[in-house]
Amino acid sequence: MAMERDNRGPAAITRRTVMGVTIAATLPLMMRTQDARAATEAAVVAGVKALTCDVQGTLVDYNRPFLLVSASLDLRKGQRFDWSGFLAAWNAGAVSTILAITAGKRPWIPAGQVFREALDGVLAGRGWGDRFDERDRSELMSIWDRMAPWPDSVEGLRRLRSRFTVAALSNARMEAVIAVAKRGGLDFDAVLTGELAHSYKPSPDVYRAASTYLGFQPGEIMMVAAHKFDLKAAKAVGFRTAYIPRPLEVGSETKVDRSPEPFIDIVADDLISLSTMLGARGANHILS
Amino acid sequence: MAMERDNRGPAAITRRTVMGVTIAATLPLMMRTQDARAATEAAVVAGVKALTCDVQGTLVDYNRPFLLVSASLDLRKGQRFDWSGFLAAWNAGAVSTILAITAGKRPWIPAGQVFREALDGVLAGRGWGDRFDERDRSELMSIWDRMAPWPDSVEGLRRLRSRFTVAALSNARMEAVIAVAKRGGLDFDAVLTGELAHSYKPSPDVYRAASTYLGFQPGEIMMVAAHKFDLKAAKAVGFRTAYIPRPLEVGSETKVDRSPEPFIDIVADDLISLSTMLGARGANHILS
Repeated sequence: MAMERDNRGPAAITRRTVMGVTIAATLPLMMRTQDARAATEAAVVAGVKALTCDVQGTLVDYNRPFLLVSASLDLRKGQRFDWSGFLAAWNAGAVSTILAITAGKRPWIPAGQVFREALDGVLAGRGWGDRFDERDRSELMSIWDRMAPWPDSVEGLRRLRSRFTVAALSNARMEAVIAVAKRGGLDFDAVLTGELAHSYKPSPDVYRAASTYLGFQPGEIMMVAAHKFDLKAAKAVGFRTAYIPRPLEVGSETKVDRSPEPFIDIVADDLISLSTMLGARGANHILS
Repeated sequence: MAMERDNRGPAAITRRTVMGVTIAATLPLMMRTQDARAATEAAVVAGVKALTCDVQGTLVDYNRPFLLVSASLDLRKGQRFDWSGFLAAWNAGAVSTILAITAGKRPWIPAGQVFREALDGVLAGRGWGDRFDERDRSELMSIWDRMAPWPDSVEGLRRLRSRFTVAALSNARMEAVIAVAKRGGLDFDAVLTGELAHSYKPSPDVYRAASTYLGFQPGEIMMVAAHKFDLKAAKAVGFRTAYIPRPLEVGSETKVDRSPEPFIDIVADDLISLSTMLGARGANHILS
């Protein structure tokens, strides 16, 4: 079911289609549902002045570059590796290192090194250590430079920026975020990263630094992320939170956790939906 | 004399007018001069990958808001104050405090406090201390929130961003730069400020932090500023430098120092000229 909506006013819902058939009869019910949801959301977002957006996975897709690079490695090496679960394991390894750093169990290292260590770990864990040389590993690492915006990210950010200060808040290095944003056409008002606090999310230091630099109280800032750990930590510091599940983050095997949480204020399917919920300009879009 | 140039190629100079009369005869000479200058500039800018731009005075005008606020204060107080030299003195006071901080002679304080102290100093110095209450001083301080882009800044930045990573590098607080940029339509790839290094330009720490965060070597970065002290300090750290004198920075009494300096690589009249010199896209413009 898709509904095309024009937000010039509540009466401006122009048409609704189910399997391509336009249906007008149920519009009043639809509108009441919309209005009730809008009222709840309005209460949640009142006073929000800035958004901080996670980047990797939330705004940009790294699964597609991974598919391309892994397929090209198969070709070059003349062998079909079983890559299933690889990306999820790689990610989990990086998160585990980051948690050790934020818990003070090991010293800070740059994000590139975190992901490289995690890659080496996954390869060793699969017994592939001998079959992937330095060049292969560099090629795998290149996926983090090739990440591209999800289809809604560029337009969603544009709409959100028309109403809010919108900053990236990433665990990647600033130079990596800038490069990915520039290539993908993602415009921010500021690029903030864990390295500015010499730490990583979910350390409270990172969210507090964002609040300081942006000049807004934590309660005036909404963290936008596809990852619950990020939202939980932001909420603990006083941020509002928006959850954008990305069902393809690590490919079709992604397990999206849709259970409600006390630390999640709103859930949106994508950034364009979020911009509509937050009342940002140019909110015409197709609801599904 | 004005010459309209189309940069599709060296032969593409289309017309040159002197007092409205089109002149073609001197074109070859003009072209040689242009080519020689272009060759020199090309050598200087080879390898430049990022620009760091000073904001206050270089990209945005604070004299116009000062004129509006001072006139409104005259009206409200029913007295015509002699504001000549006021803005220059205010600026000089702030720079003097900043130099004391970067020399380690006094502890770091936020930029807002630097400018407020300098304001209080200028008012006291003119014997106006008793005549300007807290409200008046807040009104004067508001000029730093009302700064607007110079006419070339928005388009100049857009062109420069098409070829380079372009970051703000300001002594103002990040929140102030974001607010001014957002209201004026100035888009950056990143907003960097002295506070990120808990210091101020001209401290080398600030330029070094910019190099680290942007991920480029100092020699790959060009500092763009209307102030020689900024360029001198950037050059000392290894940056390239572009000087954009702003003849109206503190009003018609601005003294622009046009003498050449060993630490200045190129001089441009404005950001659009700079974008042309650096070969950034959309470089058609009117040379004067």
